[in-house]
Amino acid sequence: KADCTRLLLLSVSAATPTEEMNGAGNLMDFLDEPFPDVSTYEDFHTIDWLREKSRDTDRHRKITSKSKESLWELIKSLLDAWSGWVVMLLIGLLSGTLAGVIDLAVDWMTDLKEGVCLSAFWYSHEQCCWTSNETTFDDRDKCPQWQKWAELMTGHAEGAGAYVLNYFLYILWALLFSFLAVSLVRVFAPYACGSGIPEIKTILSGFIIRGYLGKWTLLIKTVTLVLAVSSGLSLGKEGPLVHVACCCGNLFCSLFSKYSKNEGKRREVLSAAAAAGVSVAFGAPIGGVLFSLEEVSYYFPLKTLWRSFFAALVAAFTLRSINPFGNSRLVLFYVEYHTPWYMAELVPFILLGVFGGLWGTLFIRANIAWCRRRKTTQLGKYPVLEVIAVTGITALLAYPNPYTRRSTSELISELFNDCGALESSQLCDYVNNPNMSRPVDDIPDRPAGPGVYNALWQLTLALIFKIVITIFTFGMKIPSGLFIPSMMAYHHHDWIIFKNWCRPGADCVTPGLYAMVGAAACLGGVTRMTVSLVVIMFELTGGLEYIVPLMAAAVTSKWVADAFGKEGIYESHILLNGYPYLDVRDEFTHRTLATDVMRPRRNDPPLAVLTQDSTTVEDVETLIKDTDYNGFPVVVSRESERLIGFVQRRDLTLAIKNARQKQDGVVSSSVVYFTEDAPQLPASNPQPLKLRRILNLSPFTVTDHTPMETVVDIFRKLGLRQCLVTRSGRLLGIITKKDVLRHMAQMMNQDPESIMFN
Amino acid sequence: KADCTRLLLLSVSAATPTEEMNGAGNLMDFLDEPFPDVSTYEDFHTIDWLREKSRDTDRHRKITSKSKESLWELIKSLLDAWSGWVVMLLIGLLSGTLAGVIDLAVDWMTDLKEGVCLSAFWYSHEQCCWTSNETTFDDRDKCPQWQKWAELMTGHAEGAGAYVLNYFLYILWALLFSFLAVSLVRVFAPYACGSGIPEIKTILSGFIIRGYLGKWTLLIKTVTLVLAVSSGLSLGKEGPLVHVACCCGNLFCSLFSKYSKNEGKRREVLSAAAAAGVSVAFGAPIGGVLFSLEEVSYYFPLKTLWRSFFAALVAAFTLRSINPFGNSRLVLFYVEYHTPWYMAELVPFILLGVFGGLWGTLFIRANIAWCRRRKTTQLGKYPVLEVIAVTGITALLAYPNPYTRRSTSELISELFNDCGALESSQLCDYVNNPNMSRPVDDIPDRPAGPGVYNALWQLTLALIFKIVITIFTFGMKIPSGLFIPSMMAYHHHDWIIFKNWCRPGADCVTPGLYAMVGAAACLGGVTRMTVSLVVIMFELTGGLEYIVPLMAAAVTSKWVADAFGKEGIYESHILLNGYPYLDVRDEFTHRTLATDVMRPRRNDPPLAVLTQDSTTVEDVETLIKDTDYNGFPVVVSRESERLIGFVQRRDLTLAIKNARQKQDGVVSSSVVYFTEDAPQLPASNPQPLKLRRILNLSPFTVTDHTPMETVVDIFRKLGLRQCLVTRSGRLLGIITKKDVLRHMAQMMNQDPESIMFN
Repeated sequence: KADCTRLLLLSVSAATPTEEMNGAGNLMDFLDEPFPDVSTYEDFHTIDWLREKSRDTDRHRKITSKSKESLWELIKSLLDAWSGWVVMLLIGLLSGTLAGVIDLAVDWMTDLKEGVCLSAFWYSHEQCCWTSNETTFDDRDKCPQWQKWAELMTGHAEGAGAYVLNYFLYILWALLFSFLAVSLVRVFAPYACGSGIPEIKTILSGFIIRGYLGKWTLLIKTVTLVLAVSSGLSLGKEGPLVHVACCCGNLFCSLFSKYSKNEGKRREVLSAAAAAGVSVAFGAPIGGVLFSLEEVSYYFPLKTLWRSFFAALVAAFTLRSINPFGNSRLVLFYVEYHTPWYMAELVPFILLGVFGGLWGTLFIRANIAWCRRRKTTQLGKYPVLEVIAVTGITALLAYPNPYTRRSTSELISELFNDCGALESSQLCDYVNNPNMSRPVDDIPDRPAGPGVYNALWQLTLALIFKIVITIFTFGMKIPSGLFIPSMMAYHHHDWIIFKNWCRPGADCVTPGLYAMVGAAACLGGVTRMTVSLVVIMFELTGGLEYIVPLMAAAVTSKWVADAFGKEGIYESHILLNGYPYLDVRDEFTHRTLATDVMRPRRNDPPLAVLTQDSTTVEDVETLIKDTDYNGFPVVVSRESERLIGFVQRRDLTLAIKNARQKQDGVVSSSVVYFTEDAPQLPASNPQPLKLRRILNLSPFTVTDHTPMETVVDIFRKLGLRQCLVTRSGRLLGIITKKDVLRHMAQMMNQDPESIMFN
Repeated sequence: KADCTRLLLLSVSAATPTEEMNGAGNLMDFLDEPFPDVSTYEDFHTIDWLREKSRDTDRHRKITSKSKESLWELIKSLLDAWSGWVVMLLIGLLSGTLAGVIDLAVDWMTDLKEGVCLSAFWYSHEQCCWTSNETTFDDRDKCPQWQKWAELMTGHAEGAGAYVLNYFLYILWALLFSFLAVSLVRVFAPYACGSGIPEIKTILSGFIIRGYLGKWTLLIKTVTLVLAVSSGLSLGKEGPLVHVACCCGNLFCSLFSKYSKNEGKRREVLSAAAAAGVSVAFGAPIGGVLFSLEEVSYYFPLKTLWRSFFAALVAAFTLRSINPFGNSRLVLFYVEYHTPWYMAELVPFILLGVFGGLWGTLFIRANIAWCRRRKTTQLGKYPVLEVIAVTGITALLAYPNPYTRRSTSELISELFNDCGALESSQLCDYVNNPNMSRPVDDIPDRPAGPGVYNALWQLTLALIFKIVITIFTFGMKIPSGLFIPSMMAYHHHDWIIFKNWCRPGADCVTPGLYAMVGAAACLGGVTRMTVSLVVIMFELTGGLEYIVPLMAAAVTSKWVADAFGKEGIYESHILLNGYPYLDVRDEFTHRTLATDVMRPRRNDPPLAVLTQDSTTVEDVETLIKDTDYNGFPVVVSRESERLIGFVQRRDLTLAIKNARQKQDGVVSSSVVYFTEDAPQLPASNPQPLKLRRILNLSPFTVTDHTPMETVVDIFRKLGLRQCLVTRSGRLLGIITKKDVLRHMAQMMNQDPESIMFN
């Protein structure tokens, strides 16, 4: 995670679509534009949502008025109106396909660590034994076509020697996969590392990180995701799939100038892409939309809601068509039980919620502490070595325990399910009492067999191992959270309290339900999602009956975790990396005024301003050279200080450069005019330079007495980049988004300088 | 619907909690307040969200700082912090209980129209036969305890005479119920009529309608809802339940000054209450939250999302505990089939979507035309007569057809369900071919019996009747939409195309699924919901497998309907009634500037302003008397016109009245000072009146060049009430929310004067 930002320096030129318009050649175009808003933003800068929006409205207006001119223009305007839906369709198709391919590849490569299919090496274990005709129902994962490595190489399937050889090869494959993954990331696309969700949140809030969603990142992230998951590291594919889907979104944005040239509109597409990503990660289209709304998006109008919905639908549908799980359900971990739950069970559900909240807090604290250590010590200098080491340890410890050896999704689906009569799993090894007259699937009254206790021990070990290793692996997402509850469920099973109020013979406690609720609680504690989490959980399992238990656990988990700290894992990583993210959830309650935050401060030099009719070209050039502000306010005169507008640094630079090259008579001593008409000057004087076109005549202003909570609100809701401060019409200073973030950090007793890439 | 506004004049004093603070006695308190923002709003005025928010932050700050003083204050601050969740709990409990009571009462009274239970008259038909021990599975709705009226009165259960008597009594009961309903509404709570959703949308957007959510409205609406639904009118209880839940929300707000004294915070509670309302109306907690988000709410921060979620959960849970439907499921129309659907079926699903969209457009147009006619002609003068007439016609036409006679929810649950082998419904009357060796539940290959064709005719008639009558009944919600698809399903069944690709013997087309998808499409066309609709539909039916069909139909339906007009039924009624609702969905694309909208217009008298140190008390009083503006800008002087702040009319009136009474030496010729310090005047001069405390020093300003699209955006997102227009620091004019609405109406070629109660 930490090496991501450091690897920036190595970044290959993963060109994003916006870059095409960086050239000065566009200047003539933009001088023809009615509004002076064509310039794009620099890397690692904040966008101005209001400006992007008004640019889009202009564009829209132009197309609408043109559409009346000819049939061709009308068709073009219709195409433009539908381009949003087309982009959604394409995102859905591509991200669904990629998710399907990733699922198939992970399946195959995970099994490759243990053995190979003789009939066709590209078959996974399950596929291999499916195609084999000799399979009986009892042991469908044993078939002659599938051979473990030891069996293939030495001919001996059993024995200590074969075990050691298999163990060794398992570790070797894991190391190979993770080495490949980390090397590919380092060499080709440094941004492809990590979960991507903190960065996507930051980008969606209006920050520019060039290349983060580029083609190279897409390609490398897809490949390395397969490698990383297959290597057996304790990480999930869910977060990265969101990143992959956002890359798809960005890719398709470049097809339509409506989206590629407008950073605001682009972010609407990215929000929808994030929904599609979650939709394919969990097979949960509605959960995806809610996840995008609740967790990652910043600006989420209703239009985006509908489009996200459509993209998520198409993506889920594409994935279903590819059918990587071999069943025609969208639901990943379909649970077959529909037993009702009892009111009194709410108590353990709420306890699971409390537990999940505590676990979330612990996980976040430990993970952040470890990441901070990695950032600040020597450790961070050897990322490849670190990955290799963690993979080695993971593989070494995971192999002996059957619950950690297999892939996480297999494990989850076993834990979520109820024991049926025909289940061969060790967890269902209850003693079959021949004296009992009741049917064989009445499990609760039978005593647990040795297999169950054995399984409980192995699960407990697996749980502890996963908890510890996930903290160090960072966890793109934390499927390990899903482990915890299963044991609770089994312990509950023996509790006396349950025995008392259960009607004898009825399976009144469903262990799988506890696993499900516990998983929701733990995920809730870590990410602080509520509504989207519940929807994802029941889309994942099909257990619509269990909304109330899931809701109870999710809400409790959030309350408990929030009591220890407001930030979820993604916000914590945003803070750790110092991204300029203005969280909509933070309440600003301090009693400061705009005047306390604005610059210039008391002892600073005065604000760098331009006057409307008395600054020369040379003055402007000096100002640009001496400062690095993004723009300058323009006032009537230095005496009156009455604000008339705001000019962007970028526009100013381009305009002057252009005028110097193309416009005769513009020299250093030419006066720059921002007024409506420049005065007629005698011919001997240098030609004036009229720049009203690039002047923003409606800059956002607040008075110096405006409470900061209002200012913060305005910045959040309108997505401003800067705001000018006035008192009775006089310009006093300026507040930028970064000033606001710095001030908020200061008020929360954090180091204000930590706000910014660090 | 239309008489609602007219009945305003009759409105009993349904006191809302805000009224307690209207007295001038509060003035001294507010002069002690650090911020001059205590005054409330007049009826039918717009609130200022930004101001409400900053008042709440002040309150919060005060409590936090006090909490460090003593243990008691600490406890009080904790109580305050949890009061939001407590209010949610109470709302959930009360609205769940009310919904349960309403369901039970409707059940009973609907059956009362046909007959009575001899063993206990308060039992509904179903309960009556349940408690009877003689019931066999075959005809569970025939038992000796339940007697139709004719049987009870004449002793003859069969025959033409009994039929006519039953028919007559059915109509009589219906007329009695509806007469009671309309009379109660007219006399006690005129606001209790209609669906309530358009008004709630308007209130949530920041408008004040006193008494609309009062105690009386709650009581009368609950009672009349039962009467209206039982009378057999073509209306649903879903919309009114949202209104009832919002009344509960408003009621509980008055318990906590945090909510009762802050109109912004109150609206957060109301948004959550709306979610609880939908949650109990459909048994769909998540759908409720999404409905509140997508359809009714205006300001919906994440905090409100979580709280809505909690309220919806508690409400659904309370309803489940009351268990009015006699099964322990939350799901209202649980469907038992889980047959997969085929890709090719997407075509009919999309066709259903198209149909739903067209139906929605038609319904909205016809309904609005009828309501307009009612408003403008003599028709609107006899509301009671109208209700009686419509009830009479409905009952007269409904009785002969078994599909319209029974309650809508019974019908829906029959249509949604698949035909099983044991089903006694007429719809499932397929010919049992004795030569067939296949099991009896293989329905598709059997030819349809006469019962099916009969049922199809009856359903078609029912459909046409419901469509027509719903337009006139206005439809609080349109359960009639749910009828349409069922017939399609049955027609499809015989289509040759299906026969070809179905494996013989497999029930490849599920009629109930078509009914469900069609219902979603029709509701989507009328209300334009998408995500919330799909979630409600599958929470309603438990059919999680059918997300894709439902989504496809909902999205298509929305596209088709939007092509004919952007407004859904609720927005259309808002427009019809001229509520000042600033829709977040409308895109403002015209190229006007703030200067075109602001007042004063070119030929108007100049803007009424106050100066900071040269206006006398008499001048101010004259200004207040001569104008009806809500507030006045304060400038440095009339010459410089530099803005220093804004003062509310209400504050000004109260302050002057108070000063005249209590402050010695303040006379008509006293000068009003808004400056920080009033100059020391000689004793002979009248005492100055210092009013800086009531001056808002941070009024919102834009420049005259600001595009109106930006202004509209600012009004929407920040929820402003007014905004001042300046040019280079000079005050030019003012734009209020109503100016914005009027301008938008003008741009859309509507009558600008229609914006406001009309």
